[in-house]
Amino acid sequence: MTRTIAVIPGDGIGPEVVASARTVLDALDRRHGLDLGYETFDWSCRRYAETGAMMPADGLETLSRFDAILLGAVGWPGVPDHVSLWGLLIPIRRAFRQYVNLRPIRVFDGVGSPLRTAEPGAVDLVVVRENVEGEYSEIGGRLNRGFPDEFAVQESVFTRAGVTRIADYAFELARGRRGYVTSATKSNGIVHTLPFWDEVVAERAERFPDVRWDQEHIDALAAKIVLQPDRFDVVVASNLFGDILSDLAAAVAGSIGVAPSANIDPTGTHPSMFEPVHGSAPDIAGRGLANPVGTLWSCVLMLERLGHEKAAAELMTAITTTLRDPRTRTPDVGGSASTADVTAALVELV
Amino acid sequence: MTRTIAVIPGDGIGPEVVASARTVLDALDRRHGLDLGYETFDWSCRRYAETGAMMPADGLETLSRFDAILLGAVGWPGVPDHVSLWGLLIPIRRAFRQYVNLRPIRVFDGVGSPLRTAEPGAVDLVVVRENVEGEYSEIGGRLNRGFPDEFAVQESVFTRAGVTRIADYAFELARGRRGYVTSATKSNGIVHTLPFWDEVVAERAERFPDVRWDQEHIDALAAKIVLQPDRFDVVVASNLFGDILSDLAAAVAGSIGVAPSANIDPTGTHPSMFEPVHGSAPDIAGRGLANPVGTLWSCVLMLERLGHEKAAAELMTAITTTLRDPRTRTPDVGGSASTADVTAALVELV
Ligand SMILES: CC(C)[C@H](C(=O)O)[C@@H](O)C(=O)O
Ligand SMILES: CC(C)[C@H](C(=O)O)[C@@H](O)C(=O)O
Repeated sequence: MTRTIAVIPGDGIGPEVVASARTVLDALDRRHGLDLGYETFDWSCRRYAETGAMMPADGLETLSRFDAILLGAVGWPGVPDHVSLWGLLIPIRRAFRQYVNLRPIRVFDGVGSPLRTAEPGAVDLVVVRENVEGEYSEIGGRLNRGFPDEFAVQESVFTRAGVTRIADYAFELARGRRGYVTSATKSNGIVHTLPFWDEVVAERAERFPDVRWDQEHIDALAAKIVLQPDRFDVVVASNLFGDILSDLAAAVAGSIGVAPSANIDPTGTHPSMFEPVHGSAPDIAGRGLANPVGTLWSCVLMLERLGHEKAAAELMTAITTTLRDPRTRTPDVGGSASTADVTAALVELV
Repeated sequence: MTRTIAVIPGDGIGPEVVASARTVLDALDRRHGLDLGYETFDWSCRRYAETGAMMPADGLETLSRFDAILLGAVGWPGVPDHVSLWGLLIPIRRAFRQYVNLRPIRVFDGVGSPLRTAEPGAVDLVVVRENVEGEYSEIGGRLNRGFPDEFAVQESVFTRAGVTRIADYAFELARGRRGYVTSATKSNGIVHTLPFWDEVVAERAERFPDVRWDQEHIDALAAKIVLQPDRFDVVVASNLFGDILSDLAAAVAGSIGVAPSANIDPTGTHPSMFEPVHGSAPDIAGRGLANPVGTLWSCVLMLERLGHEKAAAELMTAITTTLRDPRTRTPDVGGSASTADVTAALVELV
């Protein structure tokens, strides 16, 4: 049965890294008979400039018929975030109940961490980020606009259902890894929502007696990710904290350009979405310099999710191999290769 | 005229680092005729265990008569944060309108940064943290407690007055430094309060045409503080973001044990409070191992604020000197000295 993937290259380097991914996926398909079908959508800031909308009115309905979504990057200078992000990326995460944002981070052999102490292999953690509620809420607004007594409010919302399912996901995941969960909090300063988060996480932890867990305030946790990144296995965090910690950990691992993410609806009711952590990078767009590994590692997560574990593992091995050699690494990770060079090397390897 | 300082040693290593600071301040006083008077208060988790309150009912009124407050650390295992922190630390910050939390970070000669690239002297930044509003609000609560449909909400509140004054403080400060301000935001995800923050910061920036400024989303900023910490001069941030970034930057500088903070009411109406960034560290309390430098650098900030610039500069030079030599550094910064050794060395130097 053909599984279909909606491809949204998006803006900036998005089309370049997605083209690379398509080439490598096609090579994989030839070897493994993955039977994947693709349809490409031009939804982007370019489309917005031409038509006034990032995607058509029935865009979400269209996507709902696919098995997965592969996204390059969205955003372009001059297009406000509430258009580009809230007109495409965030609605997809929310409409498809992709409540898990999975962000693995590793130090690869060949990719230097900026930390003196981080040896390849030593850092191997996954941030499990809550992806549909928390601090990114649409509830709020401004009063007395333009006057000296103006103020803005915004409501963070944490539900028992929302915290329960993300905690359960993290504990389950840890079972198949090193069996250790760290919950990010700030309940000493943010005294309504985060004590509630702590309480629900502690309750769920009782169902996973085989998993070790603790909690850390976000300030101390950010510091520890710099000082002892090898300590962590699974980090479970709210929408905002997961966003911060995953970028931070990727930087610590020297690998923002290789960091992947999967926006998952674990119930399988809706398509999940796979996208690199990096953005559209207008400064290097169109120059053939973009690192395709963030997108390709995202494809590994996609293949796993679609049940193609073997192809996923081979692609991951190929990625690891190319990163080892400066001739098959892009400049952002200390190499001299172009996007095309990396792509060719990966096609060769899979 | 004698200036008076309320001393609150607090919990854990708090009394040890404050005792060290008192000894060094007395030595400075003998040389510079600082004419400082002290009164010590036993407000702490110990006091809470004995009396049921961290401080007496008229505690804030008592403190209001002092020129400054020197705090060690608060918090002890078993005492909930809403008691220890919200019964002492946070009320002081708020009652005395200490709306600036100033947190300088440097890489010192002798103190190794965990970053390969951070040379001593290269990193020299100050986090200017908004300290009385923002994400740490008391507005919020829970509905349907204990039921499956339970949820918690918490309101972040940003006022025009609050953002204006912290932005102005940051721009002024940058004028006396390298003239560069970075505003921490997340207006692409947190769509009510942070676009408002951005707008007010941009408006205030116009009054400081001689100061360069930009803004960065907190996720990217956390990553950049790891990748290029020497890029930053003054970082202005909300209550939560400032908390995270200052701990992170201190870790990057290898110096959580030396990081100071000043909670300032710039209007001078109320006393300001000076405290190390580190906590009460129950694991090493009472063992003579605590690093007193975080408190002593906080005393430098206090002396500056009290108009004793010369003594402040000398104390800072003495601190820098002790950090250079492993025999006058505590173990957390790679030395072999005890708290008493560092104290003796500083007394010798000032
Ligand atoms: C203890 C906690 C409430 C406090 C804060 O977040 O303000 C601390 O982390 C700090 O930075 O002073
Ligand atoms: C662009 C932005 C809204 C987004 C987020 O914070 O979710 C991005 O930083 C990410 O991590 O995917």
